[in-house]
Amino acid sequence: MRRSEISAPSQAQGDADRPAHDHSGDALPAGPFAGRDISGLGRDLREGRVTAEGLVRLTLDAVAEINPAVNAFVHVDPAGALAAARRADAELAEGIDRGPLHGLPVAVKDIIMVAGLPVTMGSRHFTGHVPDEDARCVAHLRRAGAVIIGTTVTHQFAYGPTGDRSASGPARNPHDRRRMTGGSSGGSAAAVAAGIVPLAVGTDTGGSVRIPAALCGVAGFKPAYGTIPADGVFPLSRTLDHVGLLAATPRDCLIAYRTLTADVTPNAGPPTGDTRNAAHLASAHPAAARPRAAWLDPDGLFSCDPRVAATVRAFVESATGPLEEVSLAPDVVRDLGEAYVAIQSSETAAVHATRLAQAPDLFDAEVLERLRGATEMPGWRYVLAMEARPRLAEAVGALFARHEVLALPTVPITAPPIGTREVELHGAPAAVRAALLSYTSMWNVLGLPALSIPAGTLDGLPVALHLITRPLQEDSLFSLLEDPHEFHQALDLT
Amino acid sequence: MRRSEISAPSQAQGDADRPAHDHSGDALPAGPFAGRDISGLGRDLREGRVTAEGLVRLTLDAVAEINPAVNAFVHVDPAGALAAARRADAELAEGIDRGPLHGLPVAVKDIIMVAGLPVTMGSRHFTGHVPDEDARCVAHLRRAGAVIIGTTVTHQFAYGPTGDRSASGPARNPHDRRRMTGGSSGGSAAAVAAGIVPLAVGTDTGGSVRIPAALCGVAGFKPAYGTIPADGVFPLSRTLDHVGLLAATPRDCLIAYRTLTADVTPNAGPPTGDTRNAAHLASAHPAAARPRAAWLDPDGLFSCDPRVAATVRAFVESATGPLEEVSLAPDVVRDLGEAYVAIQSSETAAVHATRLAQAPDLFDAEVLERLRGATEMPGWRYVLAMEARPRLAEAVGALFARHEVLALPTVPITAPPIGTREVELHGAPAAVRAALLSYTSMWNVLGLPALSIPAGTLDGLPVALHLITRPLQEDSLFSLLEDPHEFHQALDLT
Repeated sequence: MRRSEISAPSQAQGDADRPAHDHSGDALPAGPFAGRDISGLGRDLREGRVTAEGLVRLTLDAVAEINPAVNAFVHVDPAGALAAARRADAELAEGIDRGPLHGLPVAVKDIIMVAGLPVTMGSRHFTGHVPDEDARCVAHLRRAGAVIIGTTVTHQFAYGPTGDRSASGPARNPHDRRRMTGGSSGGSAAAVAAGIVPLAVGTDTGGSVRIPAALCGVAGFKPAYGTIPADGVFPLSRTLDHVGLLAATPRDCLIAYRTLTADVTPNAGPPTGDTRNAAHLASAHPAAARPRAAWLDPDGLFSCDPRVAATVRAFVESATGPLEEVSLAPDVVRDLGEAYVAIQSSETAAVHATRLAQAPDLFDAEVLERLRGATEMPGWRYVLAMEARPRLAEAVGALFARHEVLALPTVPITAPPIGTREVELHGAPAAVRAALLSYTSMWNVLGLPALSIPAGTLDGLPVALHLITRPLQEDSLFSLLEDPHEFHQALDLT
Repeated sequence: MRRSEISAPSQAQGDADRPAHDHSGDALPAGPFAGRDISGLGRDLREGRVTAEGLVRLTLDAVAEINPAVNAFVHVDPAGALAAARRADAELAEGIDRGPLHGLPVAVKDIIMVAGLPVTMGSRHFTGHVPDEDARCVAHLRRAGAVIIGTTVTHQFAYGPTGDRSASGPARNPHDRRRMTGGSSGGSAAAVAAGIVPLAVGTDTGGSVRIPAALCGVAGFKPAYGTIPADGVFPLSRTLDHVGLLAATPRDCLIAYRTLTADVTPNAGPPTGDTRNAAHLASAHPAAARPRAAWLDPDGLFSCDPRVAATVRAFVESATGPLEEVSLAPDVVRDLGEAYVAIQSSETAAVHATRLAQAPDLFDAEVLERLRGATEMPGWRYVLAMEARPRLAEAVGALFARHEVLALPTVPITAPPIGTREVELHGAPAAVRAALLSYTSMWNVLGLPALSIPAGTLDGLPVALHLITRPLQEDSLFSLLEDPHEFHQALDLT
């Protein structure tokens, strides 16, 4: 499985302001995890067809060969990963099975603390910064037997949905390396999309997991607020920050989510070749019929490229049949948007107040300009936004009276070229940042679970379906497109 | 006890901008509750020397005779008060005893909802506003048998510590009616100081109970945050708003506080002439030695008139003996001050955002100017202020390592003339608002219990001792100046 057809010159590190080289004509080799899923990898591991160490070596080779073209990784930890993989192999040999993620390589966004690895937030403010402690989600990953392979490019301080402004240079979309990954978890999305890792962790404050997942053609899951703890994640906006997961398929996101949110107890019995450790989780979610979904009119939120809307709607309706259409009142949409901006701006400007005063020059120029704008958000708007949330939650809650799931595109456009800040939509100019966030950020205000699912391509670029539900209804996001019987059987992960 | 020596022309209603008439040469007659305390009134009631109806009539007469000079009341409710008093008398006759406040007239600040009475917040925005429901503290008062006599002047929307800007005109200090009461609960303080009522309810966001209590020479208690619920109180700044009590003596504040925070069950036995209903509360606070107090250097917070500091310190030390002196680090003082302003400004500007946009002309000019300033507080400062509170609480908590109580003056000056906005302190000009708030607002940021106690006069004007403690240590505020044995006996209220 080693890949030698390195197709792109090794130009990825560097400043975002440097002109992007044109790699679009080059074919990107498929990474070792392309077309693989977590269940299959688990079976291979437990049936001896592969070892955790072998998976790490495949990953390291792929990083060497593919990463220069996509700039997904900031830092890779071969020694640490190999050591962790050997421990995972030894445990399996001794009959200690930590569940579905045992022995699998995982990448972590460069804004989530990993003890002993440089974590830079994509900014020169943190050059050489090595945390002492794992973020809680990283500690959970390790306890579940996952192997931390390295850190992935984030838009600087996670403050941007384009993924192309970082001290580590822009992440590049594996589908067209002239194009942005979306962000801010752009490196995590690119690493999964390129098949370098089967799973990556990201953060999502306004769409930062789902947007790059959508633009890169992988699945991205933002769980309900707080379900994966954000301790040890560098804050962007604590009220809105979520930890999320990116993988090739929704089902892999669900497996990882359940593993990270379960109190995983290592199975001390003999290696059985399965991963039933997670089965007790499934039992908490009784089998059900296919959830009822509604199509949420995207143009009621923000102008949608009509081809994107048509592709995504056809994709979901091919599984569900024709969907009833619902919409949100314009004042609710406006208030959700204003609340998002007021909360995010105030909290982000607070996070960076000292750096803005003492080391403004270390910021990326665009990030600096946006932060300076954020400092001008008045406090009373923040207070009103925080107070508005119960009323807005009630208004959105009414949409769930007759449906469990809302469906719409994840983003209204396909990935624009890196550095682009304006596109045309319905014949009018639209700001790229506003467009990218327009279908995702509102759900962060309310803390609702949301999933982005690859829904096909347009001109070779991925488009994605976005599903939203209420807390404790997360299963419905994952089962909507599946055969209910097959889905619930699969949840046993046998 | 009827008073006929009306000493001042009836000029009190009207606009704050109208020049104040000079009433200073006139003697103000003592009201019917001057020199009386709640325990004594309760005994008189239960032993038949007076009736609740008789107390209300005394109050109504005093309102008619004294209020024109001090402008303490906005609205008086003779019919409602007399009806409530008759019910209270009938209950006592039937053996239903609701405890220490049963049958006593109480005044309520014009910003706390009283069902069926006009409540105006001191602003023309609420002319004719009659709430349907009692604020929770008012409902508690009624359940405890208290008789609501009417509403008292508040600085407009409680937004000012001077008490001299209201659609109802400035409250006037009974000690010198050219001078301000302090605020914002200026009418409540004046009503108690003039002996018109034995008890009044106020609110305290940065000192609005304690400052007017201090300037008017009555006791003012701001309990720990939330202990008297603020539901039904028009908000100034929800994070800082406290409901508090004003009475002639600290002990009356304590009796009222315990009554309002207890689950008062009417005593269905025969009227025993005592008020033992509250005795079960006292039992929760075991007898103790005199609490340990420290003198908190006032000049470390804000310049103090040296005569005020000397008078107050001599007053407290005459009971406690020499006090150890402590101080707060300048950065903690600064951060507490900044946190207060950031939180208060942001939350107040949020409360009034719609009125500022739609009906700015109905505000008092000074209040409007301050509100417009408050709209400019940046959100990031609000976020940082809210986040700073645990750290600041820890820094202040260190002061309580060896002492239960901190003592300092309540305000650094005596009551300035109405309308004054600058005074001289230590030979330098000082803003009156800043001076008035300088020793009180920091405790609102931390939600600590604080009590203002009359501590003598300077040139005929009251000065006050300010005591601060930690939540659940409230008793120490009230027992510090008392003989411990006598205090704990008195708590039985026999």
